[in-house]
Amino acid sequence: MTANDVGLLSPVTAGHDDAVTDAAVLAALVTAEVALVRAAGALGLADAQSVDAVSHLYGWTGAGHVCAAPGVDVDDLARDAVAGGNPVIPLVGILREGAGAAGVLVHRGATSQDIIDSALMLISARAVAEASRSLAAAEATLARLAADHRDDVAVARTLTQHAVPTTVGARFAGWLRGIRRARERLDAAAAALPAQLGGAGGTLASFVELYGEADAAALPAAFAAELGLQAPDAPWHTTRWPVTELGDALVQVVDAAGKVATDVATLSRSEIGELAEGAGGGSSAMPHKRNPAASVLIRSAALRAPQLGATLHLAAATAADERPDGAWHAEWPALRELLRLALGVSANLAALAAGLRVAPDAVARNLAAAGDAIVSEQRALGGSGADPAAYVGLARRLADAAGPTEESI
Amino acid sequence: MTANDVGLLSPVTAGHDDAVTDAAVLAALVTAEVALVRAAGALGLADAQSVDAVSHLYGWTGAGHVCAAPGVDVDDLARDAVAGGNPVIPLVGILREGAGAAGVLVHRGATSQDIIDSALMLISARAVAEASRSLAAAEATLARLAADHRDDVAVARTLTQHAVPTTVGARFAGWLRGIRRARERLDAAAAALPAQLGGAGGTLASFVELYGEADAAALPAAFAAELGLQAPDAPWHTTRWPVTELGDALVQVVDAAGKVATDVATLSRSEIGELAEGAGGGSSAMPHKRNPAASVLIRSAALRAPQLGATLHLAAATAADERPDGAWHAEWPALRELLRLALGVSANLAALAAGLRVAPDAVARNLAAAGDAIVSEQRALGGSGADPAAYVGLARRLADAAGPTEESI
Amino acid sequence: MTANDVGLLSPVTAGHDDAVTDAAVLAALVTAEVALVRAAGALGLADAQSVDAVSHLYGWTGAGHVCAAPGVDVDDLARDAVAGGNPVIPLVGILREGAGAAGVLVHRGATSQDIIDSALMLISARAVAEASRSLAAAEATLARLAADHRDDVAVARTLTQHAVPTTVGARFAGWLRGIRRARERLDAAAAALPAQLGGAGGTLASFVELYGEADAAALPAAFAAELGLQAPDAPWHTTRWPVTELGDALVQVVDAAGKVATDVATLSRSEIGELAEGAGGGSSAMPHKRNPAASVLIRSAALRAPQLGATLHLAAATAADERPDGAWHAEWPALRELLRLALGVSANLAALAAGLRVAPDAVARNLAAAGDAIVSEQRALGGSGADPAAYVGLARRLADAAGPTEESI
Amino acid sequence: MTANDVGLLSPVTAGHDDAVTDAAVLAALVTAEVALVRAAGALGLADAQSVDAVSHLYGWTGAGHVCAAPGVDVDDLARDAVAGGNPVIPLVGILREGAGAAGVLVHRGATSQDIIDSALMLISARAVAEASRSLAAAEATLARLAADHRDDVAVARTLTQHAVPTTVGARFAGWLRGIRRARERLDAAAAALPAQLGGAGGTLASFVELYGEADAAALPAAFAAELGLQAPDAPWHTTRWPVTELGDALVQVVDAAGKVATDVATLSRSEIGELAEGAGGGSSAMPHKRNPAASVLIRSAALRAPQLGATLHLAAATAADERPDGAWHAEWPALRELLRLALGVSANLAALAAGLRVAPDAVARNLAAAGDAIVSEQRALGGSGADPAAYVGLARRLADAAGPTEESI
Repeated sequence: MTANDVGLLSPVTAGHDDAVTDAAVLAALVTAEVALVRAAGALGLADAQSVDAVSHLYGWTGAGHVCAAPGVDVDDLARDAVAGGNPVIPLVGILREGAGAAGVLVHRGATSQDIIDSALMLISARAVAEASRSLAAAEATLARLAADHRDDVAVARTLTQHAVPTTVGARFAGWLRGIRRARERLDAAAAALPAQLGGAGGTLASFVELYGEADAAALPAAFAAELGLQAPDAPWHTTRWPVTELGDALVQVVDAAGKVATDVATLSRSEIGELAEGAGGGSSAMPHKRNPAASVLIRSAALRAPQLGATLHLAAATAADERPDGAWHAEWPALRELLRLALGVSANLAALAAGLRVAPDAVARNLAAAGDAIVSEQRALGGSGADPAAYVGLARRLADAAGPTEESI
Repeated sequence: MTANDVGLLSPVTAGHDDAVTDAAVLAALVTAEVALVRAAGALGLADAQSVDAVSHLYGWTGAGHVCAAPGVDVDDLARDAVAGGNPVIPLVGILREGAGAAGVLVHRGATSQDIIDSALMLISARAVAEASRSLAAAEATLARLAADHRDDVAVARTLTQHAVPTTVGARFAGWLRGIRRARERLDAAAAALPAQLGGAGGTLASFVELYGEADAAALPAAFAAELGLQAPDAPWHTTRWPVTELGDALVQVVDAAGKVATDVATLSRSEIGELAEGAGGGSSAMPHKRNPAASVLIRSAALRAPQLGATLHLAAATAADERPDGAWHAEWPALRELLRLALGVSANLAALAAGLRVAPDAVARNLAAAGDAIVSEQRALGGSGADPAAYVGLARRLADAAGPTEESI
Repeated sequence: MTANDVGLLSPVTAGHDDAVTDAAVLAALVTAEVALVRAAGALGLADAQSVDAVSHLYGWTGAGHVCAAPGVDVDDLARDAVAGGNPVIPLVGILREGAGAAGVLVHRGATSQDIIDSALMLISARAVAEASRSLAAAEATLARLAADHRDDVAVARTLTQHAVPTTVGARFAGWLRGIRRARERLDAAAAALPAQLGGAGGTLASFVELYGEADAAALPAAFAAELGLQAPDAPWHTTRWPVTELGDALVQVVDAAGKVATDVATLSRSEIGELAEGAGGGSSAMPHKRNPAASVLIRSAALRAPQLGATLHLAAATAADERPDGAWHAEWPALRELLRLALGVSANLAALAAGLRVAPDAVARNLAAAGDAIVSEQRALGGSGADPAAYVGLARRLADAAGPTEESI
Repeated sequence: MTANDVGLLSPVTAGHDDAVTDAAVLAALVTAEVALVRAAGALGLADAQSVDAVSHLYGWTGAGHVCAAPGVDVDDLARDAVAGGNPVIPLVGILREGAGAAGVLVHRGATSQDIIDSALMLISARAVAEASRSLAAAEATLARLAADHRDDVAVARTLTQHAVPTTVGARFAGWLRGIRRARERLDAAAAALPAQLGGAGGTLASFVELYGEADAAALPAAFAAELGLQAPDAPWHTTRWPVTELGDALVQVVDAAGKVATDVATLSRSEIGELAEGAGGGSSAMPHKRNPAASVLIRSAALRAPQLGATLHLAAATAADERPDGAWHAEWPALRELLRLALGVSANLAALAAGLRVAPDAVARNLAAAGDAIVSEQRALGGSGADPAAYVGLARRLADAAGPTEESI
């Protein structure tokens, strides 16, 4: 295998992207082809024995399961994909030949885009489920941290300067709100992921020719059911909101984690020291260094994700004709990289949260150093300004309201 | 007034952006300040007479109404905003002075971000409502066009080449699905827009100091009610999903319109000629030219919007501390420009749709020129391939299913 | 005048963008039209009296001068630009009418893109010159600062943590190198800005028809000379590197300033305090605050500029046919906003540098607090590690080498 | 090896990216480490025998040569890179151990960033050289095509509509100018690529400690010489123009190719047919299809590259402190993907150009169909308008001036 990337330049995602590797994409492509055969079988449009043969051959074990592709070399396939511009063309040949007599059922009536779009939705569903689990874990930890530090008064900073008092718990609760919202949006996007089935021109004409109108109309839902995806309301070959809405949700996840990482990186600065990552990274030159390594990695992703989301939108906005002349191809690596970033960022965030250490002394020291100025507003409003702890407003309530997530119970 | 922009370099938005000009922003800032006074009044935290005086002085006439700012010159304000980095600081001085004895109520307990965020949500709500109306009008027209051309067989094109038959109606229905989805998402985003109220550190401490915990806790919802916005679940000074979710929805609108414009630009090419804009643009050099002017303008926006959305995400992901050191400021022009593009694109799309002319002769000519090849798939599947019209599959059903929107009845 | 923007939402550019307002664009459009008349005159292709009449009428006073447009209302023009998609179409009518009998010379043989592209290059040249002056001023200040603080030992920070010793001067010298490089690239880009002249199809056919081949071939250079721009090697209607190379240089300026602002924002944090902006911004809620206001504004621009540069590249990459169907129009506001950001950022950077205050006590305090760890590398290499000042390597030499810029002498 | 990507989702780059795979990066990292040992040797700072031993062990054969890394598994290294956030930390351990007694020389005085930055510049130099060769080949072909079709009159299109006459040769010459300019800029960027050497804080203090000031000052140039890179004027750990200038040049290459691909995709449309790719791609559903496959792939890259360039700029603009907290890490995958796109796009462009077929009949047919309108401008200028060929202005001269490139002789 000639690997382009094994993750050497992407420590933020290394070890977290099994769900979206090229091998996973290949398995998903095979799964989509098998699911199409099975959908025809489920509607009585293909003989059961052949359907079973194909299913067995490629390792089908149930809805949402990902097939294997014995005899398909992903490296060869990548090379053979170039001429036609996509890997389905050579893959179909291999799968048909591999299936012998039943091979006629493979890719029957479909177009490449049906298979690729469906496969990408399939790996998206799996990746999102994994990322969502990591986010839920991070939420549970942050909810606990918010509760644990509910009463710890700290100095709030605005435009880099000491401003007024707040609490450590309120800060954690703010992070938690962002992550929870992002996960909810991501889960909603995942729940809406549709299968793709339209045939060459998006009219399902090939299926009508093969099976008649009624069965052709029923096929997309049957196909989606086999894949564990949503039935599309219509083919979406050039109506690309399923991709952009997913992309937006993935970027939102990275944003929410980016906010946390930005704050952790700042608050673990040598001079501030209110937070520390439990397992900070080392240095090749300086043995004493304890870097906020997860924060750094998450932040690296946060600088990249928005532009990948933009690429998906540009592709959607220029999706010409009944299949685009470049815009569709631009989506593939951008969507996959966004999935990868969401996976890596979520996993790093969960680990960061789990290991996060609060330094109460430093919190208190910085608060004290902020001095009188941070209660000047209070005094201007008529208060005594004697005690910063008496000027945290609803900070405790904000921490309480963020509350423990279901996952934390 | 020293105008930076009146729209000379932005024909796609010129004439459609009254809701988001600097004058509109100023009015929204004043509205937010008045609403805060009124919210205090509504909770019995300010004397009714003073509240009425401020309301009257700045032209308050009801929830969602935008105030005037007599005596405030937007140009001066822009200049005076530089030193502190935002326009609220000088504005508060003017408004307090203008309100005389009642002036003490103005901006009471608030921080600049409370006012700017709320004002931007306010102009967003107005802009979105206007854009949504334009989109609904475009949908109604496209639904009619889809029905009118339900049976017109045309050639589908994939990767720029003639592929298989489809119908003109199915094409319009595909456009319609994209626009309708985008409008629904936009409307949902608009319905969720929250007011912002948190005070200097996002803890509402100033309001607690002024009014006590219970009333401080009630104030954000009262403030939101005055503005016709949603009550926030917590201050979102550095939890920026309200901005990015809105931004994503605005970009999705531009995407959906961009798809239409891309197809219209192609299908009105001199050699294709299946579509024409009713009022194409002219040329300074060539009197005969009938350019697809609205499509060109919409496409210009489609190349710009995704990057503006990316900027909002980058700002969200790097929103440091309890108020960011640059990320928040980066949002303002990016969000406003996205609103402007959505407004301009929606209006141009509605006009484009309203004037769109189908050339049945060209449709038929291109179909005929495509010849036998486009039914080769049908023939390979065992069909006769004698008539392209017999190979449009469910195209008519897809057109029917897109159906007339409610707005079209 | 119905102003969209006067700068209320853009404090980073407010007051610094006279060179690129819509009024400036209008003046540049008129200048380009007059220059074309004059170029014809210079080649003996138009009678001198008419050329003088047009020149006088529109206020021509010399190469590089920007004309006035009496009787042209920029607001009306923006509105009238919509139908044809660009402002030159209505402008030509006005200018021709205004010029009476000599009006026939106006826009003779030209296409809209000739005028708009040339006008945008003209305002670019002016804006770049102004930005370059600000950058040079910032460089002079930083060179002085690097020299002044050549021997001040400070702690270097990597991944947010104290690392090893450095000097304040070396830090300033690093900033200086980035800014100087950016200015040199910007100046080089400015020196290469070409006029545009090609006629409707980019073949100069109209000019050949009017004047013959030899004079048509000479006209672009004559036109460029009148404008103080470079003669194009060929029409570049859809060969857009003049725009993207300028855009890249503008983004590079913002990057270089962004690096400085990022460091100043960090180093002026309450807990660090090694630097302070001379005139920090205030707060509407907290009278004690001294925010690093210029840094915040510059950073807001740094989050925006790269995406504007990307838009220019996307437009260049999709510049279809002999004039694009949207890509060209997308350039206008993106380029103008980049110019505006470069102007605002450069001016703010010069002011920031001029007012920058180093706090030697804080520098020393942080160095001391870093303690023994920052010489652990030295010790591992066999050094004594007794004195951080003995472990700054070539920091002084790096500061010296950055040296005073020519501008600083 | 657990490969993330072998290119399955990236047909535009598959087969063209050997120079930038993770394996190539690993080899470059080793090369940088060996070069540092050799540089010390060249300055007499390390004993020759040990230097030779390290050189021999890791396969050094000459300047610019890329070393092997026997015993280093790239997959393991990627995994071990996560904790510290970069692969150099674990790599150094392996290399030192592998080198036995001479291992003490490995990474002596260096910091991770010295090695990673230098290695990325090294693979950049190789990738750029390869891309430049492909571009030169494309230029040679286009120069020949411009000459061959110098006199073929065609219709120019603006805003998608027939406009005025031009020639096929002038069109090719326009493409050629864009590509040639891009290659020149790319070559210039490649010629400027600097090595990185600064030690932990960018002061070269570790080298001063080891070798004294004079030798430490000489080391970066010696290191660069071993690598075949430019000597840096100073460490550029957080002065990132070497990366962004390269990135801009790479995007410009993709832009120039994107322009060509956009035109080829349009001109090979079924209804236009003036051009065809020699080896168009097929379809999984429609055997008759001849898609403009290379154009589609190039266009997919053109929609992606600008955002990758933007990521590099964002990283440069937020490169904090003496080493950034995320921005540096964000560069790695973005730069590598840009290199990959430039390689793939250039190779596809050369192949596209080599196989490009002009259909003179279609050119003539479209010109004829454009009819009288395209000479209406000529007639308005007083010409006869009898023959489009008499209204191509300087089109032939523009084709001639683009001339054959040196490479084509």
